[in-house]
Amino acid sequence: MNIGIVGLGLIGGSLAIDLHHQGHTVIGVSRRVTTCQDAIARGIVDIADTGFAPLSEADIVFLCTPLGVIQETVAQLIPHLPTTTILTDVGSVKQPIVEAIAPVWPNFIGGHPMAGTAESGLDAAQANLFAHRPYVLTPLDSTPPVAIQQLTEIVQSLGAILYLCKPSHHDQAVAWISHLPVMVSASLIQSCISEPDPNVLQLAHQLASSGFRDTSRVGGGNPELGVMMARYNRVELLRALAVYRQHLDQLMLCIEHEDWPALETQLTQTQQARPRFVDEPLSNT
Amino acid sequence: MNIGIVGLGLIGGSLAIDLHHQGHTVIGVSRRVTTCQDAIARGIVDIADTGFAPLSEADIVFLCTPLGVIQETVAQLIPHLPTTTILTDVGSVKQPIVEAIAPVWPNFIGGHPMAGTAESGLDAAQANLFAHRPYVLTPLDSTPPVAIQQLTEIVQSLGAILYLCKPSHHDQAVAWISHLPVMVSASLIQSCISEPDPNVLQLAHQLASSGFRDTSRVGGGNPELGVMMARYNRVELLRALAVYRQHLDQLMLCIEHEDWPALETQLTQTQQARPRFVDEPLSNT
Repeated sequence: MNIGIVGLGLIGGSLAIDLHHQGHTVIGVSRRVTTCQDAIARGIVDIADTGFAPLSEADIVFLCTPLGVIQETVAQLIPHLPTTTILTDVGSVKQPIVEAIAPVWPNFIGGHPMAGTAESGLDAAQANLFAHRPYVLTPLDSTPPVAIQQLTEIVQSLGAILYLCKPSHHDQAVAWISHLPVMVSASLIQSCISEPDPNVLQLAHQLASSGFRDTSRVGGGNPELGVMMARYNRVELLRALAVYRQHLDQLMLCIEHEDWPALETQLTQTQQARPRFVDEPLSNT
Repeated sequence: MNIGIVGLGLIGGSLAIDLHHQGHTVIGVSRRVTTCQDAIARGIVDIADTGFAPLSEADIVFLCTPLGVIQETVAQLIPHLPTTTILTDVGSVKQPIVEAIAPVWPNFIGGHPMAGTAESGLDAAQANLFAHRPYVLTPLDSTPPVAIQQLTEIVQSLGAILYLCKPSHHDQAVAWISHLPVMVSASLIQSCISEPDPNVLQLAHQLASSGFRDTSRVGGGNPELGVMMARYNRVELLRALAVYRQHLDQLMLCIEHEDWPALETQLTQTQQARPRFVDEPLSNT
């Protein structure tokens, strides 16, 4: 199969490695000449170009650009494609992408491989990045079954765990488990650093341990990614934040009113609920 | 030196292991006969008893009971002690403990070894639990310097990183880095499980990954510990929660008003501030 990949960063590069290794013909597109040269030199693409023309031969094209430029990329790309080409993206938000692209390209299927590393760029690309990780596809009722079938087979060939769902369900689920945690965690860091007494702040720096490290991790991540999540999944994230604030207020009220049985009931619920998300045994610490 | 340990659980047992190994005479006290027998059989105490009488020989006594019973333990213990005995505790909150005990026992110094494991009880006790971990002591201006000196030497002999500070500063610092994260993290789990659409909730379970795992970890911990923190550090925790809520509201406003530059500024601050707490390089994910 001829597979096009637009954007040769961590995700695009890792897709190229696996798909080229499987024997597909991989056509890479990058804005930068040096990235094209690099991809050819590494032997992970068969063809690399800064323009879209070679993609006219592709059966499937993966759009691996940042969220913010997917739509304009599609507008520039589609004049080069036969209508049979299957288009998919790898963006972390699906509803606005699918709404924008599906009407102009019926063979478009939104995708979200939930894999990554702390690094980015082609240098960080690696084999088997998607193995044993969730890969969500969000076809519509109007999506041609043959397109779903072909893309599904490729996703499964990466060793990924495939989920098919509505774009809106994807965005609601990731608002809870991915985007809300970033804002919750960032607010934690913001409040700690607002401590006005320098002695207390220094002590907080010194005493912070695994609890703070874990709870603050995603709030101390890449600011551009955080903004992108908020921007593209704004409605669902705001809905999640409003619900979060209610639950925070409930906990605060329990503590204010010294209602320890109610606080214990809530903390028991969270202790029991967490393993359903994380495949870990109940924690006792 | 004769060292008494009241409460032979994870912390008390681990203290016994290290101090006995150093050649001190260790006198253990536990409510349970079986725990006393167990400690003797393991060879980590020289004497073990369910009563306080043998502690009359101790130069220093570590109170390793749960926070909720420290005060009543002290009331029962002090009739057995000569006034020269140095008393210290291992509770995770210091101001209320020090306020209650220092007036009745001038040789009392509040202590908080910030070490632990996921397990509890004597079976979980281990050598070198305190090595390279913070150990906070909170003497008062009125505490006899010789008592501070002797306890300091023992803490350092455990390989711990010693911090001396006011009880109130300790409680403010741990409110930020330990107790606030528990409530922030528990509220995250509470809000996720409130999702009314079972399809979305199931998808959230399936897609939750390292970001959710880390941010939710301490909120899915032992409910009794969470209640104990809130109960004994209530004022500082409520103060921290109120500040947290303000910062959360600020982030929500940025998102509501689509003020992306302001959101990026805040997320850049948190990215830059976090390494001061966690000794990790800046994260880019």
